Amino acid sequence: MTTDTTKRTTLKALGALSLGATLPFTSQAASCSATDSTRWDASYDIICVGSGFTGLAAAIEAKRRGAQSVLVIEKMPYCGGNGVINAGQACFANTPLQNKLGIEDSAELMVSDQLKAGRGIADRALLEHNAKLGPYAFQMTKECGAVYLDFCQQPGGHSAPRSHQVVERSGAGIIRPMLAECEKQGIIVKTRVKFDDLVFNEQGRVSGIRVMEGHYHDRPGLGKPATLQATKGVVMATGGFTQNIRLRMAQDPTLTEEVVSTNAPGATGDGLIAMMKGGANPVHLAHIQSGPWASPDEGGFGYAPNYAIFNFPHSIAIDLMTGRRFMSELADRKTRADAELQRRDADGNPLPAILLTAKAHSSQNQHSLDNVLEAKVGWEFDSLEAVASHFNIPLAPLKAQVKEWNDYVTQGKDAQFGKPMNLTQGKQMSAPYSVIRLWPKVHYCMGGVQINTQAEVIAAATGAPIPGLYAGGEVAGGVHGVSRLGGCSIPDCLAMGITAARSIMKA
Amino acid sequence: MTTDTTKRTTLKALGALSLGATLPFTSQAASCSATDSTRWDASYDIICVGSGFTGLAAAIEAKRRGAQSVLVIEKMPYCGGNGVINAGQACFANTPLQNKLGIEDSAELMVSDQLKAGRGIADRALLEHNAKLGPYAFQMTKECGAVYLDFCQQPGGHSAPRSHQVVERSGAGIIRPMLAECEKQGIIVKTRVKFDDLVFNEQGRVSGIRVMEGHYHDRPGLGKPATLQATKGVVMATGGFTQNIRLRMAQDPTLTEEVVSTNAPGATGDGLIAMMKGGANPVHLAHIQSGPWASPDEGGFGYAPNYAIFNFPHSIAIDLMTGRRFMSELADRKTRADAELQRRDADGNPLPAILLTAKAHSSQNQHSLDNVLEAKVGWEFDSLEAVASHFNIPLAPLKAQVKEWNDYVTQGKDAQFGKPMNLTQGKQMSAPYSVIRLWPKVHYCMGGVQINTQAEVIAAATGAPIPGLYAGGEVAGGVHGVSRLGGCSIPDCLAMGITAARSIMKA
Repeated sequence: MTTDTTKRTTLKALGALSLGATLPFTSQAASCSATDSTRWDASYDIICVGSGFTGLAAAIEAKRRGAQSVLVIEKMPYCGGNGVINAGQACFANTPLQNKLGIEDSAELMVSDQLKAGRGIADRALLEHNAKLGPYAFQMTKECGAVYLDFCQQPGGHSAPRSHQVVERSGAGIIRPMLAECEKQGIIVKTRVKFDDLVFNEQGRVSGIRVMEGHYHDRPGLGKPATLQATKGVVMATGGFTQNIRLRMAQDPTLTEEVVSTNAPGATGDGLIAMMKGGANPVHLAHIQSGPWASPDEGGFGYAPNYAIFNFPHSIAIDLMTGRRFMSELADRKTRADAELQRRDADGNPLPAILLTAKAHSSQNQHSLDNVLEAKVGWEFDSLEAVASHFNIPLAPLKAQVKEWNDYVTQGKDAQFGKPMNLTQGKQMSAPYSVIRLWPKVHYCMGGVQINTQAEVIAAATGAPIPGLYAGGEVAGGVHGVSRLGGCSIPDCLAMGITAARSIMKA
Repeated sequence: MTTDTTKRTTLKALGALSLGATLPFTSQAASCSATDSTRWDASYDIICVGSGFTGLAAAIEAKRRGAQSVLVIEKMPYCGGNGVINAGQACFANTPLQNKLGIEDSAELMVSDQLKAGRGIADRALLEHNAKLGPYAFQMTKECGAVYLDFCQQPGGHSAPRSHQVVERSGAGIIRPMLAECEKQGIIVKTRVKFDDLVFNEQGRVSGIRVMEGHYHDRPGLGKPATLQATKGVVMATGGFTQNIRLRMAQDPTLTEEVVSTNAPGATGDGLIAMMKGGANPVHLAHIQSGPWASPDEGGFGYAPNYAIFNFPHSIAIDLMTGRRFMSELADRKTRADAELQRRDADGNPLPAILLTAKAHSSQNQHSLDNVLEAKVGWEFDSLEAVASHFNIPLAPLKAQVKEWNDYVTQGKDAQFGKPMNLTQGKQMSAPYSVIRLWPKVHYCMGGVQINTQAEVIAAATGAPIPGLYAGGEVAGGVHGVSRLGGCSIPDCLAMGITAARSIMKA
């Protein structure tokens, strides 16, 4: 087990992600299509809207496939979107690292786990496509320079350890080398360029986009409009809409502005809205996921998720009223988030559960333990008595629950909630303990525009692809169904970005 | 208890609903707006797209509020949409009939039942608005000539008997008098006119629609295009999309063409698609409801629903494998449909449950009993032995279950599934029995375009109403959340149609 102490990516480090050139588009105007009456300020083979995993993977793959000019635009002053603030955990099945660690896994098993979490409405074809592309996508990030930890984790809902995490423990550890690769390959990446709308030509093909240069997210309306041609295709990689309070409340009125989101402020759904107006078919917009590994004791994504994901397998989540477990700590995200939200006092007020872990085990990932303790999101206790006293938990049932759990560990079978016990072998619960509190935060939009396995965007009216328009990642919907499994966004984004580029370059 | 024997509306009777004039629009061209460059073939104050409850209520209310010229278009050769093939059950709270029957109820109680079924994402403001308008809507149908049975039923999820059913036991009993009222009021109703698209003027206001006259549903492409101006507003009352297999499968891949829908063939979502392209905000499209009162032994809506809805309170649903109940027969639709779909044999093949009823009780609605028996959707048995033998149910558990149920009836409390027992008083289960089989059919789209309590259609990009565009009924989404309660579509349609007309006439 590694105890790599590389620091979590800081905001300072993120500064390095702001490599957008500030040259106006008008100075770059090139070969404008003669068949199109639009007056273009600049022209590219391919334009990727958004600089997260999807946009960068599409750009890099497009170059690999022979694209001459590729533009990536990003409305924020820095690149990476949610990609630079997540935990950098990517699930791939049947990798060299898994083989080295003796972990049995397969793309089929991963898809079957994802379908289960999708509750019958996930898209099997898209999941299988992405799983198949996983090894290539993983390899691409490594060729760009991403460095992974030498162990695999098993996020909830997965039936094998298959989450590969970069040493930075943040997606920035993937985004940064991909941006360096973009620079090396002559891909133009521009920040503060806000996508405004799609441009269609007379034949109904997406021929470019309208943007605003010099955009400031907190001062909308500033900037200079430009019209950019994409001769081969536009890749929409604009992410979700959890930061658009109005839009998310239209789907779920409980997600008021008081509900914290783990996402980057740019996740406002502009790309989704433009594509719907362009005729794209929106699917599963009502399914918005909350992360069950979040703490109510810190803002944003925070430190708790990394700690919790590592420790869930050998920890127990305890209801403060009963002193008992109330869920499988490795259930899928929706199951756990729903269960956590039901932890309330007699008046219905939130009473966040605790995640109880033996320090003997949480200290095996000292880095994440230090983070939660330093941020005062986590606590240490010498005994169950101290835990019970601090959180006002009835002691006797808590003690009984810990004893019961230890029996399950011995037996290798969780008779209470059927939690997978493959990672808990020998990990008895004993003092001293580390503890965090659990309360879900809005994390991911399962919904978006319908796409096919070519990353083509499907029209609602006809079921046919909208020519020239491609999408992938969170802005595409229906892939994961009701609930996406943890660690499955990065591989999804990478695979669909790569697929979009391949489709464009062979079209 | 009435034993009204008025025949269920037959297809022949539906013929009377085809009152569309066939004069082409061009002969009616009137005052065309000078500020709009569109060349109009005809002009009206208000155009209602769709001739179900919503469209007709909007048209009638618009006339009441002083509209001069109102057009209702219907793409099918007959009027009424789903309205003429449903059971004609409409839930209103606190009506004169309820008072006469001594039923305690209120709008608040009805909304609270609906919110519960909505699982946290129903729109309280819209539900309250509709409940408040209920008595006016109910009265409007009676003033048009609808005649209601003299008892109330209690569909699943409702906590009081509040379903008012017309004597025809079909929504045609409401649609037909409303169509007669349209004729009386000079409202133009045209069939075989297919809505194609919205027309926006230079200010972004919906100024009219494009249609195809002389449309044949099974021969698309025929007909003559026309462009119709709506000087005051367009009311989209186009219903759901359960008959658009491609569209419903994009939301739920399990709803293949093999899955039967209870809906009219015109429910294909054209209006929804056009509004999304016009910038409307789609909400809850992923929530598609199946009716838990359907029989696998007949096509379409059929006779089983009417029978089942009347008998659910005093009947028990039995799993064929166990001989036991498996749900509250009065739970909300989603709860019951989900439970019914889980009735399977050891290989996972569907094994539809039976609904077991004492003939002493089902014969209290002889009309619906006769229907299921004549259609061979229902059976009669002299004893539990005969039931068990016919359906291959283990006899001992079945007998024990019936005895247990009868104890619940005596105690007035269902200890098994918490079913409301207010209607079962004294209704012990005893031979002889009547039986139908239960398997859900696709019935209703909870999703559609976002609207506000003015029936204005909300734009995804801005959250503001799209000027000139109104919607109500099934094409509007978000009202009911995850699961609409039975009998709540008709009042919803009527209330929102009325509201659209009022908003237009005061704008």
